Amino acid sequence: MSVVDLSKQVALGIDIGGTNTKFGLVNHRGQILAKGSIPTDQYNTPEEFIDALYKEIQPLIDEHGVEKMIEGIGVGAPNANYYRGTIEQAPNLPWKGVIQFADLMTEKFGQPCKMTNDANAAALGEMMYGAARGMKDFIMITLGTGVGSGIVSGGNLIYGHDGFAGELGHTIVKPGGRKHWSTGSEGSLEAYASATGIAITAKKMRAEFPDSMLNQFPEEAINSKTVHECALKEDPVAIEVFRYTGQKLGEALANFVMFSSPEAILLFGGVIKAGDFILKPAKLHMERNLLPIFRNKVRLVFSELDEADAAILGASALVWEK
Amino acid sequence: MSVVDLSKQVALGIDIGGTNTKFGLVNHRGQILAKGSIPTDQYNTPEEFIDALYKEIQPLIDEHGVEKMIEGIGVGAPNANYYRGTIEQAPNLPWKGVIQFADLMTEKFGQPCKMTNDANAAALGEMMYGAARGMKDFIMITLGTGVGSGIVSGGNLIYGHDGFAGELGHTIVKPGGRKHWSTGSEGSLEAYASATGIAITAKKMRAEFPDSMLNQFPEEAINSKTVHECALKEDPVAIEVFRYTGQKLGEALANFVMFSSPEAILLFGGVIKAGDFILKPAKLHMERNLLPIFRNKVRLVFSELDEADAAILGASALVWEK
Repeated sequence: MSVVDLSKQVALGIDIGGTNTKFGLVNHRGQILAKGSIPTDQYNTPEEFIDALYKEIQPLIDEHGVEKMIEGIGVGAPNANYYRGTIEQAPNLPWKGVIQFADLMTEKFGQPCKMTNDANAAALGEMMYGAARGMKDFIMITLGTGVGSGIVSGGNLIYGHDGFAGELGHTIVKPGGRKHWSTGSEGSLEAYASATGIAITAKKMRAEFPDSMLNQFPEEAINSKTVHECALKEDPVAIEVFRYTGQKLGEALANFVMFSSPEAILLFGGVIKAGDFILKPAKLHMERNLLPIFRNKVRLVFSELDEADAAILGASALVWEK
Repeated sequence: MSVVDLSKQVALGIDIGGTNTKFGLVNHRGQILAKGSIPTDQYNTPEEFIDALYKEIQPLIDEHGVEKMIEGIGVGAPNANYYRGTIEQAPNLPWKGVIQFADLMTEKFGQPCKMTNDANAAALGEMMYGAARGMKDFIMITLGTGVGSGIVSGGNLIYGHDGFAGELGHTIVKPGGRKHWSTGSEGSLEAYASATGIAITAKKMRAEFPDSMLNQFPEEAINSKTVHECALKEDPVAIEVFRYTGQKLGEALANFVMFSSPEAILLFGGVIKAGDFILKPAKLHMERNLLPIFRNKVRLVFSELDEADAAILGASALVWEK
């Protein structure tokens, strides 16, 4: 009987984004032994894309001499389905319809392949390597261009009956509110708390207050980064943009807490660079909308993972998951 | 080795309500072999209450000659905690603070005792004996004096880190909306979709429309039953009361679906007697608030269990649960 050195087993983690796809060889400890990336949007078919991935990844595997130790492939992708191993109708990817992505990967790489959506992968990554280590009940909210989520309950990701659970960015926080630029829904969390939503709020508010520093930027430069700069300089309008965003986020979080009673909510993504400008009002409005039984129990925490690597780590965590 | 006849094993199911407590001996098939009830509110201490329960239940056990076959006790109660076997700060029960109820029961009855809140018990009952048989992902919504919920994901009830998950009645469906008579929160689902909420809506609307049939009743007779009577007689105001209620319920359900992606939502409780008057608008507003990926997938179903027995069945299901 041979003893397997766990530290030599690696998982191939792949994060497919609308523009770029990142990949890495990750060991059990969450160390990325090698990584790289290719553009996502330059391949007309998933087959061509996978061929290009293979050409980039195989040399890394050879170089690290771990070919026989690869445990499997984990892929995080928008609209990926855990049960079916598919990518389905992803609006931000070049390939339309339902793609049997996991099967195509296995065919090419000769390895088992598991998939989930990018936010679920991020939640797995936090549970295995990040701020959620040891937690069995938490919610991960990714605040980027959009708002994604991964929900862990009793130690397991919630996938739902069809594999599509956890679309908290699309829950309605203000019925009849701001129309979503892509889904058309009115008043979703994503319409307010994403980077896109923050830019919309900032453009509206600066129009109301001609004295705001935000008016020093051209229209296309208004984003959560420039709002943050102005907030740091104590521009009250910029501060109000984040306060309002935090309020909407906090109201939504209260509803999530009363659903699954997590011990923590992890926030992740570019928007959290605004720090306390968003976190404090979010916490306040979460607490005030909670039943007393839930108050002062739920930690609101920022992710501990490096943003550049988190997606790869999360995807690789799919492989280690029981 | 002796063969155990499963049909002879029974569970003691107990449902503690604010006014009455119902109990029954239930077999694996969900047949209630014997049942009874005692008032809840006439005992100053939980010990006195449990003594009274014992005096009522022991003769039933003796009579049915199943003492040695009792598998355990399952209790559904407001604010019951599954992990700790406690009833905590229940506003509608006579005993205050944190009560170690399961331990007290085991001491008296000599049987293991498991507890959960009443809505979770109802969900278990539906999963074991009712409309949710064979389902692994569904949400149970109880529409009674209040609005309760039990959420099943991947075949397991969601309890959350502290055992209090699933308070969907207290999620906010209209920020800044109707103030809740007891919690003080503004715009919760319970404030609109409970029997209490429906009565409030009906009183407001009949005041606006002097010609409505609803004005033929004295103030204290306005409830979901009288509104239903008027709706059946095609009173447009009564119909609008249910339509509005259904809209708020549907908007809330859409958010729940995007959380856990259930295959069905089960509705239970006195309010569902309004039938299509509520169900149709609920379905409509649920669908229109869903992302396309979730549309026309989730069944909205009424409970199949007899309301009088469902709570006992649900509590007993706790015993059979793995």
